[in-house]
Amino acid sequence: MGRAIARAFLAAGHTTTVWNRTPGKGDDLVGAVVAGTAADAVRASGLVVVCVIDYAAVREVLRPVAAELKGRTLVNLTADSPDNARAMADWAAQHGIDYLDGSILSPAATVGGPDAVVIYSGPEERYRAHQDTLSALGGVGTHLGTDPGRAAAFDVALLDLFWTSMSGVVHAFALARAEGVAGRELAPFARGIAGLLAGVVTEYAEHVDTGTHPGDDSTTRSALAGIRHVLHATRAKGLDAGVLTAAEAVAARAVESGRGDAGFSAVVDVL
Amino acid sequence: MGRAIARAFLAAGHTTTVWNRTPGKGDDLVGAVVAGTAADAVRASGLVVVCVIDYAAVREVLRPVAAELKGRTLVNLTADSPDNARAMADWAAQHGIDYLDGSILSPAATVGGPDAVVIYSGPEERYRAHQDTLSALGGVGTHLGTDPGRAAAFDVALLDLFWTSMSGVVHAFALARAEGVAGRELAPFARGIAGLLAGVVTEYAEHVDTGTHPGDDSTTRSALAGIRHVLHATRAKGLDAGVLTAAEAVAARAVESGRGDAGFSAVVDVL
Repeated sequence: MGRAIARAFLAAGHTTTVWNRTPGKGDDLVGAVVAGTAADAVRASGLVVVCVIDYAAVREVLRPVAAELKGRTLVNLTADSPDNARAMADWAAQHGIDYLDGSILSPAATVGGPDAVVIYSGPEERYRAHQDTLSALGGVGTHLGTDPGRAAAFDVALLDLFWTSMSGVVHAFALARAEGVAGRELAPFARGIAGLLAGVVTEYAEHVDTGTHPGDDSTTRSALAGIRHVLHATRAKGLDAGVLTAAEAVAARAVESGRGDAGFSAVVDVL
Repeated sequence: MGRAIARAFLAAGHTTTVWNRTPGKGDDLVGAVVAGTAADAVRASGLVVVCVIDYAAVREVLRPVAAELKGRTLVNLTADSPDNARAMADWAAQHGIDYLDGSILSPAATVGGPDAVVIYSGPEERYRAHQDTLSALGGVGTHLGTDPGRAAAFDVALLDLFWTSMSGVVHAFALARAEGVAGRELAPFARGIAGLLAGVVTEYAEHVDTGTHPGDDSTTRSALAGIRHVLHATRAKGLDAGVLTAAEAVAARAVESGRGDAGFSAVVDVL
């Protein structure tokens, strides 16, 4: 992701200095200035963008260069949780560092192009000051509010949707394979199922916001029956049943709590 | 679903006799003959279609009318697991009943229309004999093979993908709400995330079939980090962490088994 970010700034014609925890990484970025130390990289610009694996790694990199960061704007595009984002904003404030928290919601390959989705939160004035430069990351850039944890709140909810769904994708292929069904045979149908989810998201957003969970199309009871069919087949083939067992427990709790005839969006109130 | 099926046959001009375990259900189906008993319903036609909550319910309904079913074609559109489908086919064969197993992969509202997806397995000759009539259910009807468990194998894999993803959808809305983010605020971004899955399915199908799991775009190690961010945020808000904890365990096992730098499709081999 760091490489994609650097490439996007370079493509937009910005002088871009890069530094990576692994020496040599980024040496091939044509046009970039490769800094020898994190301090050198920070000193090179009024706008410092960091993107590593988590905020523990951010702290490890940035704590030794807090003095150099003072008076500059730090944009942290690393993914982590909202409370970690707020703690990072507090740390930055204590050191006189202007801080914006952000998240990249689209794959690395989209960065710099029209399909990139990047969200920010923190002081609006700081965002406006760097908005033109940050627009080099492409696509839709959105400032979601002044609470520095807000971008991370959106990010974790979206990572939740993504990685839980991805857990379902890989398990579906594993179960199909165990039943002698090849990936290419399942794929056309699986694309159809995946294609239903965007519509569900739109419907469920309204159900959640209004607190109404119509069960006209499908109920938590039928969801539970469906999950149990999958579990039965999964256990029959000796596959890992952890995620499904947990999903079953949630659906069962929804039914037991009197939500059996409600739509599956009612599960939000059980979680 | 039963109502949607009956409506589709009626709309196609077929004489349609209906029976439901709950008396009165189906009385409002204009043009349908309402049978007083399951035996009456079975005797009304050479083609008998059953769709209830699971195969235990199918057995409860059909065992007492096995004699009436003899010599007719039974199409079981109930969702259940492949071994249950094969057991049902064995039972049918023992009683001289022609048997096709099937699954409806699209929501009830699609049945009878162009977006319906219905799959069948069992003797091809039986499918061909009733294909015209069954086409009333709409959309794409596909015969997947003679193994009566094959439609159910596709079905459970697709239910796996669907209900695991749906578990992620509701958890994402719950986490967003706990962070003060409304459903309507999350929805535009969540639709974008959901929209990525169809492309992932196409890619992963090839990775699974070829046994190559490139980690160019994203690795199981970054997946694990992402899941841990979500878990941290989930626990901080006191939300149910069951599904995510299980997903974390699977991703961690992938990393521990040396697949940290591989793409997430490598998890198929861990499951």
